Amino acid sequence: MTARLIGVGVGPGDPELVTLKAIRALRGADVVAHFAKRGHAGNGRTIAASHMAPGVAELPLIYPVTTEIPKCEPRYRQLIHDFYDAAAASVAERLEAGLVVAVICEGDPMFYGSFMHLHVRLASRYPTEVIAGVSGMSGCWSATGLPIAQGDDVFMVLPGTLAEPELVRRLGDADAAVIMKIGRHLPKVRRALACARRLDHAVYVERGTMRDGVTMRLADKPDDAAPYFATVLVPGWQER
Amino acid sequence: MTARLIGVGVGPGDPELVTLKAIRALRGADVVAHFAKRGHAGNGRTIAASHMAPGVAELPLIYPVTTEIPKCEPRYRQLIHDFYDAAAASVAERLEAGLVVAVICEGDPMFYGSFMHLHVRLASRYPTEVIAGVSGMSGCWSATGLPIAQGDDVFMVLPGTLAEPELVRRLGDADAAVIMKIGRHLPKVRRALACARRLDHAVYVERGTMRDGVTMRLADKPDDAAPYFATVLVPGWQER
Repeated sequence: MTARLIGVGVGPGDPELVTLKAIRALRGADVVAHFAKRGHAGNGRTIAASHMAPGVAELPLIYPVTTEIPKCEPRYRQLIHDFYDAAAASVAERLEAGLVVAVICEGDPMFYGSFMHLHVRLASRYPTEVIAGVSGMSGCWSATGLPIAQGDDVFMVLPGTLAEPELVRRLGDADAAVIMKIGRHLPKVRRALACARRLDHAVYVERGTMRDGVTMRLADKPDDAAPYFATVLVPGWQER
Repeated sequence: MTARLIGVGVGPGDPELVTLKAIRALRGADVVAHFAKRGHAGNGRTIAASHMAPGVAELPLIYPVTTEIPKCEPRYRQLIHDFYDAAAASVAERLEAGLVVAVICEGDPMFYGSFMHLHVRLASRYPTEVIAGVSGMSGCWSATGLPIAQGDDVFMVLPGTLAEPELVRRLGDADAAVIMKIGRHLPKVRRALACARRLDHAVYVERGTMRDGVTMRLADKPDDAAPYFATVLVPGWQER
């Protein structure tokens, strides 16, 4: 019995930003699982594709819902909770059969990743390993060539969902920041940055390390359209 | 003329946590530069060693001082500033000769990395590329199997150098946090965590992804001895 659960960080998008350790885990797995939206391959699966053994067994874990129902609704929470229970059960079935299951994780598995929902359900029951990956935000500031934080900077990750006064307060309290999950929150994020006097240096990034990535000063962005996974970078290192 | 400056993130310590992109850059470089303390190989150089072309030209950039003089002293600042000027000049010399210079960066180049001091001095003058790496903190929480942040968590990186009340205040304002550069600040960090009621879940990590790494609940650590690069992880995701 060699049953093992492995969370495999495959980085932010560029298949070259995958580590040797991740590639070895993907190639050595009996089953490769990945999260995806119905009808989509999933970004993680696309990144990992060239590194998987041909014909390896795959286990797609399909979200029952993504943005169709607001996250605050109890129905959303219940659906997602049940989904993670079922996903964990389906992974556990393979582990019970003595298989090595690699779960593809975009970015870094333990940093805002879906894999964490499997980890909390399974890590105490089966041998589990987590392979760190290059995070999405790291891919963004590197592709942009933007020094983000240095020395004794306080760095913050802020969700775009925060209320406007809360965003203003926290931006005023951070040397450097990344604002995630921009989507429909862009107008609010823009106002908060202006109010905190950080708009001038803020950088807007879409699909950071992908070939069709978009990067510009947020102040230069002519509209308020942004995908859910767009990111705003607020560089620190003021003394440089 | 193919002159190019490349900041190469080589990850947190495990040579397997290096990306394909980093390996290609190291192998393709005419010169491989790395920062180090006098008389030491440098962690980055050690991580990258197995990925470098045999006999490639190397350019060690030796810090004139590390912890011998307090960072707040003007003399320290002057020495370090002059050192980065000289390091940039010495890299620029190779770039002027049309060479590709890869600079080894532990962790992620633009995230609290020494490479940033070369980047601000050279990126506007020469073609420059930054290859994102797995950050040190990411290596730590992955090796520890600690889910660090999820959903709408606010995540903070805090330097251990912050004053105690400031640490307490910020820990009370963060869902998840990483406290870096622990060293002699450990007793203060411990008190601040206790005061912010976060000590119970805090995890102490030394040499996260190295073979001789140490991980334990901070509350269980029997002494106050810690190296400069030790890290304390404060997990978020309270609702899980």
